[in-house]
Amino acid sequence: MHAQPIVPQLDAGSAEAKREEIRGYFHTTWDIYEKLFDVMSSDESYLVRPDPLRHPVIFYLGHTACFFVNKLVLAKLIPERVNPRFESIFAIGVDEMSWDDLDEKNYDWPEMAAVWEYRRQVREMVDELISTMPLSVPIGWNDPFWVIMMGIEHERIHLETSAVLIRQLPLEYVESTPDWPICERSGDAPANELLPVPGGTVVLGKDRSHGLYGWDNEYGRRESDIPPFRASKYLVSNDEFRKFVDDGGYATEQWWTTEGWSWRQYVEAVMPRFWRREGEQWRLRCLTAEIPMPWNWPVEINQLEAKAFCNWQAHRTGRPVRLPTEDEWYRLLDISGVGDMPHWDTTPGHLNLDGPASSVPVTENMTAGFGDVVGNVWQHTETPISGFPGFEVHPFYDDFSTPTFDTRHNLIKGGSWISTGNEATRDSRYAFRRHFYQFAGLRYIETDAPVEVQDDIYETDDLVSQYCEFHYGDEILGVPNFPRACAELCREAVGKRKISRALDLGCATGRSTFELARFADFVTGIDFSARFIKVGHEMQQNGRIRYVIPDEGELVSYREQTLADLDLADTADKVEFWQGDAHNLKPRFDNYDLVLAANLIDRLYDPARFLDEIHGRMAPGGVLVLLSPYTWLEEFTPRDKWLGGRKIDGENVTTLDGLQAALTPRFRLMGEPRDVEFVIRETARKNQHTRSQMSVWERVE
Amino acid sequence: MHAQPIVPQLDAGSAEAKREEIRGYFHTTWDIYEKLFDVMSSDESYLVRPDPLRHPVIFYLGHTACFFVNKLVLAKLIPERVNPRFESIFAIGVDEMSWDDLDEKNYDWPEMAAVWEYRRQVREMVDELISTMPLSVPIGWNDPFWVIMMGIEHERIHLETSAVLIRQLPLEYVESTPDWPICERSGDAPANELLPVPGGTVVLGKDRSHGLYGWDNEYGRRESDIPPFRASKYLVSNDEFRKFVDDGGYATEQWWTTEGWSWRQYVEAVMPRFWRREGEQWRLRCLTAEIPMPWNWPVEINQLEAKAFCNWQAHRTGRPVRLPTEDEWYRLLDISGVGDMPHWDTTPGHLNLDGPASSVPVTENMTAGFGDVVGNVWQHTETPISGFPGFEVHPFYDDFSTPTFDTRHNLIKGGSWISTGNEATRDSRYAFRRHFYQFAGLRYIETDAPVEVQDDIYETDDLVSQYCEFHYGDEILGVPNFPRACAELCREAVGKRKISRALDLGCATGRSTFELARFADFVTGIDFSARFIKVGHEMQQNGRIRYVIPDEGELVSYREQTLADLDLADTADKVEFWQGDAHNLKPRFDNYDLVLAANLIDRLYDPARFLDEIHGRMAPGGVLVLLSPYTWLEEFTPRDKWLGGRKIDGENVTTLDGLQAALTPRFRLMGEPRDVEFVIRETARKNQHTRSQMSVWERVE
Repeated sequence: MHAQPIVPQLDAGSAEAKREEIRGYFHTTWDIYEKLFDVMSSDESYLVRPDPLRHPVIFYLGHTACFFVNKLVLAKLIPERVNPRFESIFAIGVDEMSWDDLDEKNYDWPEMAAVWEYRRQVREMVDELISTMPLSVPIGWNDPFWVIMMGIEHERIHLETSAVLIRQLPLEYVESTPDWPICERSGDAPANELLPVPGGTVVLGKDRSHGLYGWDNEYGRRESDIPPFRASKYLVSNDEFRKFVDDGGYATEQWWTTEGWSWRQYVEAVMPRFWRREGEQWRLRCLTAEIPMPWNWPVEINQLEAKAFCNWQAHRTGRPVRLPTEDEWYRLLDISGVGDMPHWDTTPGHLNLDGPASSVPVTENMTAGFGDVVGNVWQHTETPISGFPGFEVHPFYDDFSTPTFDTRHNLIKGGSWISTGNEATRDSRYAFRRHFYQFAGLRYIETDAPVEVQDDIYETDDLVSQYCEFHYGDEILGVPNFPRACAELCREAVGKRKISRALDLGCATGRSTFELARFADFVTGIDFSARFIKVGHEMQQNGRIRYVIPDEGELVSYREQTLADLDLADTADKVEFWQGDAHNLKPRFDNYDLVLAANLIDRLYDPARFLDEIHGRMAPGGVLVLLSPYTWLEEFTPRDKWLGGRKIDGENVTTLDGLQAALTPRFRLMGEPRDVEFVIRETARKNQHTRSQMSVWERVE
Repeated sequence: MHAQPIVPQLDAGSAEAKREEIRGYFHTTWDIYEKLFDVMSSDESYLVRPDPLRHPVIFYLGHTACFFVNKLVLAKLIPERVNPRFESIFAIGVDEMSWDDLDEKNYDWPEMAAVWEYRRQVREMVDELISTMPLSVPIGWNDPFWVIMMGIEHERIHLETSAVLIRQLPLEYVESTPDWPICERSGDAPANELLPVPGGTVVLGKDRSHGLYGWDNEYGRRESDIPPFRASKYLVSNDEFRKFVDDGGYATEQWWTTEGWSWRQYVEAVMPRFWRREGEQWRLRCLTAEIPMPWNWPVEINQLEAKAFCNWQAHRTGRPVRLPTEDEWYRLLDISGVGDMPHWDTTPGHLNLDGPASSVPVTENMTAGFGDVVGNVWQHTETPISGFPGFEVHPFYDDFSTPTFDTRHNLIKGGSWISTGNEATRDSRYAFRRHFYQFAGLRYIETDAPVEVQDDIYETDDLVSQYCEFHYGDEILGVPNFPRACAELCREAVGKRKISRALDLGCATGRSTFELARFADFVTGIDFSARFIKVGHEMQQNGRIRYVIPDEGELVSYREQTLADLDLADTADKVEFWQGDAHNLKPRFDNYDLVLAANLIDRLYDPARFLDEIHGRMAPGGVLVLLSPYTWLEEFTPRDKWLGGRKIDGENVTTLDGLQAALTPRFRLMGEPRDVEFVIRETARKNQHTRSQMSVWERVE
């Protein structure tokens, strides 16, 4: 049809040639996007919502132009907007919205002619920029041309997703055109079968020097070992899926996940979304027309339906059938030898608009014995998207990926007939809500390997994130990292004592637990908050945590921290984390040579009780290290339980006095108390800056 | 009777002689206090409450011993307590309490024998300390012996206040003893008259080198000019007061203050508390007995009754009659030539237990034509107590005075027959709630001078105090004072412009308003908060503010700041403070050459409106200086009004972007924005440490 160009290589060629290549790529993209809208039957059809929770089609036409302007403004590459009103109304609402966001009164859509004129103006402006902006090769992700590429690839994404939406419009609003031909080949479906895929190592993720434009979620690196598995030879055809439908698959809760069944009940689905049934006749809705059901085309369903099909299939066959994970999908890709842009000679599947504007039979594009390794329709996976280790947000599009790192967006792989540009490259990673439709189906696999879902999603709990940064983040205001400093001071305090067992009480997100393990044989971290403990666990298990911290107002930064970067990788197997109450520890927590309680005592509901009992957890001669800013608050500690910082029998009692009274005679104060500063970041500009008092106590009784 | 010794001079004599003098003073005090309790008729009477809201008498017997121990522990002069239980139950509850503090079940009073034994033990311990503690002359208020003097003088206060309480016990619980004889002289009262007192300057307050022990409220210095006035020759006698009673004074609301009438209604008073009426016979309750009314003794009433009497007298005579202020009382003292301890040869009035244990006729002690300039009974004043300029809290007794600096405690002056030690010195200052009884009456004066009540009481509003310290307090964490830095940066920013009028918008407690007046001819400070503006006003009017800041838990510090100490005394007449809304300023606030808005914009409910209108308040070429940490909170600013720090049309907009958009083209950004740090103290250990961004804008349109 309109086979699209190979994506520009950003790290090779002369500057001027690259400028012209990008200019061409821009205009081709602009043209094909506008051409898609040829199928709209009238200006009125642009105002029809393809889905009750989506904007009408006019939005998507304006949106890709508006996106260019907004990103160029943000990057300060253009001094002013093209049309501030349009750049507001076409800016947001790409995804499914809630009903009240869509209140019609919020939208006063412009005339179609104005939208086309706006697109013309933006096209001219971008062309002018392409002609005049400084360009040097390679083009990196901080360069002005990266923003141009971002706008282009963004429009290519919408080429596909707008096609999906247009497919959902009633037929009266669309018309067939020769530019968007439906495949005329169809017939009986082949019998599917499972073929072996050898095990091996999969390496995912690009580094910054990669020669193609990429979205932020493509960078970083993940390596995994995949055991051998078997994969279905073909994508599941309409015919193969019909057995599930005929078997009452849509009426049988047991095949569905909780989420899947909930969705099915809500939409009252009885078959795939684009299937039609007229008496005994089955038909399929394509982009612009309905046709008799092509049984040997791949079925198009959402991830929830794909998963239900696999569960049904597993039950039916008694085999461990499921969707592939992202890694498993790449393993099949790797052994198939399918080529990747820009290095392919011919399109390695029904991809890149290099064929009809619809699916084709599942048997037409075979590679290494498998059909449609890439192309035709996307393939659902078991894997919710998350960033690879080393992930960083692009500053000009910080919400491209991170909102999807929520375990609710699953990856689709391989591309479809209308996937072009970045979408058609090996490394691209797209993910949608599991109930969303794309041009997507499935290949199932058989394996005993469990699915490991990465749930190292970005911590967004304000307090937990604040403590993640406090423990693992950057030094602020020149004050050394507090949990690390505490551990270092513990090391000084214990001197030559051998520390077999250390206890980090009130460990919060666990940094000092790891730090203590630099010199202690084993360290227990305990905190009252399960939310905090979860971070320590995650750091221990994955060696990595991720969280979001506020910068200014609602603007945020995304952070990733690793044990390795903190030179703590070796400590992971020397620590344990438990949720627990410092007043009431389980019996197993005993015989500690060192107990650190940093910023704990003024958060206990009965600190005197804690101090009265802690000797029972310690080995003779053990060392107790207390740090606290003595910020007594009735929210945490009833006033009459404050160790100090109050009048007792009419006289001022400091907390240090109270500590001395509570710990004598079982403990002996070692040396003079000293102050240890700490800083907790609240925003990019605002911090808490506090001094804790440290006192070190030796158990003498 | 038992004339008491002259108070020890702490700045003269040899150490060993001083040690013995103090030992003697201690034992004399201990003896006379115990002797007072000879009038208790039985052990049971100790358990009777003299007042429904006061402890029984046993508490006061134990309390003065317990006080020694508690202060010595606090001062770390003794290693352990004498009797922890007693030192808890006898510690608090000296003053009137609320009914629920007095719940009987909270108190399990010991046997009397145990209390006496406890007093013996404490006496022995203190004697031992006096014998052994290091002593050098002079004894200053940080020295160990100051704590001894504190305990002694504390007991001397209770000698008097316990006598007042015992006087309130029913007669069955007391018995007369020869040691506490009631005066037998009484007769017709003299006609009172007003005598002139020449005007002059009164200087109050001691400095630290003063030779006698003093409570914290005596230190500092206040000077005032007193215009001539007239004062009643005698204290008001029972006879003179009876005219008020007979005239229906207790039934006539118009003579009473609101507080006074409220008290009268509550207690249903119809005559002075210690008066009795049996048919036509009037009698007076003395310490241990009732006697026929001695009409020529001074009337004993509380301050509210004294004030009502004056108002009645003023109305009756058509003259401006009222109580004297503290300063006016001293003016009369000064012209009377009454001697002061330790420099008197004979007691200058019925004072220091140098006579009967009751009042005496008002005619017996004449000095310079006036009766009872000091002694006989205390004299009520118009003046609520507050600290003199330079006041500091004593670290071992931080709640001796400050809780009374609340405008609800009025000074009584001159002492009574049972005032001894510090109470009997010129410089002592005692104040009680206005409805309390002491051995106190009144002398009235006639003057046109208005009463100026100092309301520079300690600011205790947490937020206001925090800002007082932020603006006027010490440098914290090495970060320069922020409002001062802002003003300095304004001075740099305006360069050689002449600044006739400057506006400090969001001035809070006003420091930068004063600072701007170093180089601006006139500065207007405006803040939305009347609570903040009040501080600026007070600083301007009095050159001084006082506030309380939290240190640790409920422990606090008292602070005084003066314009003079900040070298800002000259600016007070170049500033004005107004409460106002930055969005909606009165027309008169215009034509400013400089507008400073520090930490304001993120606290406005519509910052864009403010920025849109501010040029109208400025002279052409005027300079607008904005500082803000951009801490946007929905509590202050609806999210859709945030200037930045949010996504607008899907893209991140920083506040600086938002400022630029809002101020262009009326203003031009001068130079690059820069950061200015500030620190706000929350406790002695905890601070907010923030960076504001400063941008400077010149009005160009």
